Formats: sequence, C-alpha cells, structure tokens
Amino acid sequence: MQRHFDTELNRLKNSLIKMGSLSEEAVRLSIKALIDNDPALAHRVIKNEDRINTLEIQLDNIIVDILALQQPVAIDLRFILAAQKINNDLERIGDHAVNIAESVISMKSFEDREELIFIPKMAILAEKMLHDSLDSFIHNDPQLGMSVLKHDDTVDELNKNVFYKIIDRMKSSQRTIEMGMHLIRISRNLERIADLATNIAEEVIFITQARIVKHYSDESN
Amino acid sequence: MQRHFDTELNRLKNSLIKMGSLSEEAVRLSIKALIDNDPALAHRVIKNEDRINTLEIQLDNIIVDILALQQPVAIDLRFILAAQKINNDLERIGDHAVNIAESVISMKSFEDREELIFIPKMAILAEKMLHDSLDSFIHNDPQLGMSVLKHDDTVDELNKNVFYKIIDRMKSSQRTIEMGMHLIRISRNLERIADLATNIAEEVIFITQARIVKHYSDESN
Repeated sequence: MQRHFDTELNRLKNSLIKMGSLSEEAVRLSIKALIDNDPALAHRVIKNEDRINTLEIQLDNIIVDILALQQPVAIDLRFILAAQKINNDLERIGDHAVNIAESVISMKSFEDREELIFIPKMAILAEKMLHDSLDSFIHNDPQLGMSVLKHDDTVDELNKNVFYKIIDRMKSSQRTIEMGMHLIRISRNLERIADLATNIAEEVIFITQARIVKHYSDESN
Repeated sequence: MQRHFDTELNRLKNSLIKMGSLSEEAVRLSIKALIDNDPALAHRVIKNEDRINTLEIQLDNIIVDILALQQPVAIDLRFILAAQKINNDLERIGDHAVNIAESVISMKSFEDREELIFIPKMAILAEKMLHDSLDSFIHNDPQLGMSVLKHDDTVDELNKNVFYKIIDRMKSSQRTIEMGMHLIRISRNLERIADLATNIAEEVIFITQARIVKHYSDESN
C-alpha cells in the first residue's frame, strides 16, 4: 500500500511539474511575441492553451483518486491540497499568457509601435518569480519560495507606473489610446502572473512549514 | 464517528454560506457605492475585506481537519474538494469588490461623472449570477447552477461593449481618459466576478453530477 501510495504521489508531482513547464512556456512565448512583435508566435500560445486545460482536469482527477483511495494524512495530505491549488494557479497563469498573446495579435494592426516602458522589466521579474516558485516546489525549498514573495511589491509598483505613464501619453496624443489600452492590459496580466507565482510560493511554504503566509500581500488589479 | 462527521460537514457548509454572504455583500455594496457615488460606502467595503480573508483561512483549516480526521470518500470527498475551490473563488470575489471600491474612491476627485453605460446592467447580472450560484450550492440544485453558466457570455459581451464605448469617448474627449480607465477597470472586475460565479456553479454541478463542466466557457479578461 505504501509503495503504491508513493507511486501515486510521484505521478501527481510529475504531472504538476509538467503543468508548470507548460504554463511557464506559455508566459515566455507570449512575452517573446510581444517584444519581437511576432503574431504567429502569439497564435501558438493560444493554440497550446488546450493542453494546459486538459492537464488541469487530469490532475484534478489524480488528486480525487489519491484522496479517496489512499486517505493520506499530515504532510502528505497537506502536499495534495497544495497541489490542487497550484494546479488551479497554473491554469490561470496559462489564461493570462493567452490574454497577453491576444493583445499582441490585436496590436499588429497599429502602424506605430509605442515604447513598452517598464513592461519588459516586469516580464523578466514575473518570469523569474514563476520559475523560482516552481523550482521551490520541485526542490521543496521554502527559502526560495520566500524570495519570490519579496518581488511581488516591485511588480505591483511597476504595473502602477506603466498605468500612469500610459495615461499621460494618451492625454498628450490621442492616437496612442488603443495601443495604450493593450499595453495596460498586458501590464495587468503580468502583474496577475506575478501574484499567482506568489500564491504558488506561499503554497510551497505552507507544505513545508505549515504556516499560512497568505494575505502577506493583497491581490490587486 | 458518522454523527461527528456530519457535524463537521455541516460546520464546513455553514462557514461557506457565511463566506458567500460576506462576498455577496461586498459586491452589492461596492456597486451601490458606484451608483450612489458614495465613497464612504466604498471605504466600508475595503474595511470589511479582512473578515473575508480571515474566514477563508479558517475554512481552509476546517477542510484540512476533516480530510485528515475523517478520511471521507465518494460524494463527501467531492463536496469537500469543491468547498476548497469555492472558498478560494469567494475570497477572490471579495478582492474584486475591493478593486471596484478603490475605483469609486479615486473617481470622487473628478468633477464630471461620466455616464456608466452598461455597467449597472452588468452589475445586476453579475450579482444575480453570484446569488444563484450560492443558492445552487446551498440547496444542492445543479439546474440553478446550469442557469448561471448561460449568463456568462452576456456579461463578457457587455464588458467588451463598455471597453469600446469608453475608448470612443476617450478619443473624442481627452478629459474623459482617467474616469474612463476607472470605468473599464470596474467593468473588468464585474466580468471577473461573473466568471468566478460561473466557477462556483460548475463546482456545484461537479458535486452533484460528477461531471466536469469546466472550460465550458473560457476565462477572459
């Protein structure tokens, strides 16, 4: 029974790692599509979304099976409940990457590309946060998880700065309004990705330390 | 043991109903603050957020306890896993109500109030969806849950219309840009509340019918 349980737990962990790498790739490609102005790449992100959604449902089913058949307790139970939340967070990260990709596609119709302001900087930070939160999960490393939490405020601040800079640009030049709206949307989606990476890091800390660090930083968008 | 288990399940259900009514009230008051232009009421929504966040953590702890001590299977297990997701959805709905309240407070500094376009209509629909999804949970009524799913596309459509109407208004009158940004933010938050009500309805259907209706409609913002 114990050996079977370990096999099931490993299966769950491996599927979650796969889910993490799919979501991470979606974010990476959507940002690359933005920076390279590459709508074809953005279309690929949208096409790949189905794989993430399918894997999310498979993972949910694995979780129900383990809980029903193995009735785990203590650290294993905590790990499985956290896995359910991380699974959901990763699916939402995939959604946000799709939102970014959609904006990249809409933006191809604008003749002038406006400056991206702090967006590339935000993207680097959000990608790092996501990568580190997944690494902290894989290597069971709450210290790395804690380091993710520290960046969340910086991304929030950059998001606000993008917003106000774009409002100023819209006021001084009306032709930038539509492009500006897309850039604000992209910035907001990056901020949400950073928030979700923070959630994942919090779950890792919860698994290993049984400490609720939620509401350490408030969600904002 | 069975009687104790039933008591625990009821405790979980009652706490979730309380969480639902707090979130519902947050949405209702944030919309009332918008329509009545009442920043004091908006401040109350922000003040009440702590209660929602505290209750979310309490509920998570109840869930861990039940799973660890009672090791439920079948329909009970499914109910408890759905409860965990609904709990998380309700907390996020509370966050979106706070976002709306924050915009209402920022908007008080504008001399002219712009027309709210379809926002009151969206608000009525989103509130109804949330109310019905919670009712479908309380009365274990998947039919009512299914009716919630049907409204999601209408709210998405209204959100898009608000977006384009406001962009047009910004282009024709630059002084509407900042107010317009807040209205777009409010509209987007209502659309997210409707999405989360849809998630809750899906969970209710999952509990009662063991059918995955997820990705019936895609998340968009």
